[in-house]
Amino acid sequence: MRVLIAGVDGYLGWSLAVFLTSKGHEVAGMDMYYRRDWVAEMGSQSATPICRMSERLNAFRENFNKSLDFRKGDLLDYNFILNLFRSFKPEAIVHLCEMPSAPYSMVDVHHTVFTQTNNIMGTINILYAMHETCPNAHLIKLGTMGEYGTPNIDIPEGFFEIEYRGRKDTLPFPRQAGSWYHQTKVHDSHNIMFACKIWGLCSTDIMQGVVFGTRIDEMGDDPRLLSRFDFDQCFGTSINRYCAQAVIGQPLTPYGKGHQKRGFLPLRDSMQCLTLAIENPPQKGEYRVFNQFEEVYDLTELASKVKKVGESLGIKVEVRNIENPRLEMEEHYYSPDNQLLLDLGYKPTHNIEAEMKIMLTDLITYKGRIEAKQHALIPDIRWDGTRRKSKYLRK
Amino acid sequence: MRVLIAGVDGYLGWSLAVFLTSKGHEVAGMDMYYRRDWVAEMGSQSATPICRMSERLNAFRENFNKSLDFRKGDLLDYNFILNLFRSFKPEAIVHLCEMPSAPYSMVDVHHTVFTQTNNIMGTINILYAMHETCPNAHLIKLGTMGEYGTPNIDIPEGFFEIEYRGRKDTLPFPRQAGSWYHQTKVHDSHNIMFACKIWGLCSTDIMQGVVFGTRIDEMGDDPRLLSRFDFDQCFGTSINRYCAQAVIGQPLTPYGKGHQKRGFLPLRDSMQCLTLAIENPPQKGEYRVFNQFEEVYDLTELASKVKKVGESLGIKVEVRNIENPRLEMEEHYYSPDNQLLLDLGYKPTHNIEAEMKIMLTDLITYKGRIEAKQHALIPDIRWDGTRRKSKYLRK
Repeated sequence: MRVLIAGVDGYLGWSLAVFLTSKGHEVAGMDMYYRRDWVAEMGSQSATPICRMSERLNAFRENFNKSLDFRKGDLLDYNFILNLFRSFKPEAIVHLCEMPSAPYSMVDVHHTVFTQTNNIMGTINILYAMHETCPNAHLIKLGTMGEYGTPNIDIPEGFFEIEYRGRKDTLPFPRQAGSWYHQTKVHDSHNIMFACKIWGLCSTDIMQGVVFGTRIDEMGDDPRLLSRFDFDQCFGTSINRYCAQAVIGQPLTPYGKGHQKRGFLPLRDSMQCLTLAIENPPQKGEYRVFNQFEEVYDLTELASKVKKVGESLGIKVEVRNIENPRLEMEEHYYSPDNQLLLDLGYKPTHNIEAEMKIMLTDLITYKGRIEAKQHALIPDIRWDGTRRKSKYLRK
Repeated sequence: MRVLIAGVDGYLGWSLAVFLTSKGHEVAGMDMYYRRDWVAEMGSQSATPICRMSERLNAFRENFNKSLDFRKGDLLDYNFILNLFRSFKPEAIVHLCEMPSAPYSMVDVHHTVFTQTNNIMGTINILYAMHETCPNAHLIKLGTMGEYGTPNIDIPEGFFEIEYRGRKDTLPFPRQAGSWYHQTKVHDSHNIMFACKIWGLCSTDIMQGVVFGTRIDEMGDDPRLLSRFDFDQCFGTSINRYCAQAVIGQPLTPYGKGHQKRGFLPLRDSMQCLTLAIENPPQKGEYRVFNQFEEVYDLTELASKVKKVGESLGIKVEVRNIENPRLEMEEHYYSPDNQLLLDLGYKPTHNIEAEMKIMLTDLITYKGRIEAKQHALIPDIRWDGTRRKSKYLRK
């Protein structure tokens, strides 16, 4: 299939380009390199060294005997998207090109407005360009499990049938997102559902859990094929940050009580699931929602697992909770469904400790790059609008 | 109370400035005059002549012996809002300063992006400026009943308690808005709820029905105190358009089958309700939602009422349905609650025919201004993205 990846220079985008190409799909990608700027703004860098795009594309050709059709450009530039869609004629568009960090969106009014403008308007431009140039293409859009928040009831996949005052209807499940960034995903979901309804577009809106991992098998031995691996307070996800902390001997730092529960999945499962969505498109006019995660974990449970795996590799690991910079429930009910991808054939790897072992081994190679930016691991962006480094909590 | 009206040059904003001032409140207002430009872009004009702001302010001083503290500026200019809030020190901020038209938001990608940027970012700027300068002020934000769409169950006021798979929670009622404009109100609601939660702001989010009417008593005999009255396809609401059509002898034009049901309220009831919300603020940190309408009507039922009242005034009125340019259900269940404002003391006027009589009488005075722009009454902006004038339907 002809698959266009928006955000191909990012963590998921680059990995997906590698994965889909190795599976024989024809892949194009676009990016504006913002992620590189944002991480630099945080005073950090990717643990894995990321070469410039021209070198990444060389590595691609050398390894796969195939070019990645890359175009530099911004989703806020409507004519760029129109031209891209007209020339590549995508059958599937995977939209991974949003600002993906909750803390980054909470810095100040300018970061909030940037995040909401960038994410919402980029998605609207894609929807309009699909309507204008390729109305039968399938939009695979990255949302987040964070759209739902942590309600006191089970979380279905996007919609639920309810009875209220004696009448029934099937309605979108209410969203209660916990950051300005997460809110953009909620807004996108509403906008995409509406575009499918009025224009007959089709879309899979992926409520993805937290992804972790340094590699997929298809990257082989060429370090130029590795994706980025961020560990700073904004762009590092929790298991990734824990592993980075473990290899440099910094305590792992669950936030607050540390009993927040979230859905998680390894990078390789994310690739498997996105590919299943791409290869099994919905009906024309259909807007479907997948909850995409492998398993639910408590953040402290995860820290213990990293500690255990680290120690099996001879790394001494300590866990020390720090002040929670976020406003969120630290103990709560959490029971989301994730049946739809299993029905499509998703085979969860279910071996989180093996994945952690690969990650720690990979990261030891890049230990110096993490040490050089280790200050970026401790959060200072707070949900109350202030900016102060979180302190360690007494036990 | 010190009340700041954002969007004071508009239909509701100007009326509210008159109403609150006559009730003894201290009022400031801001506007950028965009509404004047948008209506001109539609090739139309207000039926009531609207003089420039300096003359409106003179009329204000002459009638009330009091100045309206007016500042020209744009909500997208964060420093403008900061300075305004710092100097006026509002206790209540009434946000009526969004692009308010569904069809205008549907014209093309540029109008959609403009609408979503203008509305969402303007509201975010207000929230941040409140947090920074007046965290105890009360934000009264104009949403719309259109946020809910037309679900097959009753519509509560913002939230509902539900049982799902044997567990209970109180959650935001799902939103299913029917235009890019209506979606912005949904996005605003999510953003405002979040700001109240993280920063302890308080807000009343008003899901308002469709407002109609040419005047409130407090405008007296001075035509300079009248608010604008738009009748074009974008900025004219349905009863207002029907009345404009009646006075120039054009058939009234319900869309499609014409059995869409909506909540409606006269301008005087809207003023009464907004004032009740202002004078009865929520608790700090509280986000509350009011459904603000007087009664639910079917659009054909309303056309019949305008016809009846018109004929009592000697005007011959015909009703002819036209092609529906929108994608919406034309027959559906509709049962929204509106108890919270009644509990605060709202006294519905419950005399829609008397209100229509005042409107028709007022509009006869400005018949020539409507005739000059009568082409603007028939819609051509379609939800499928095309632009074609709607034709009359055969009976």
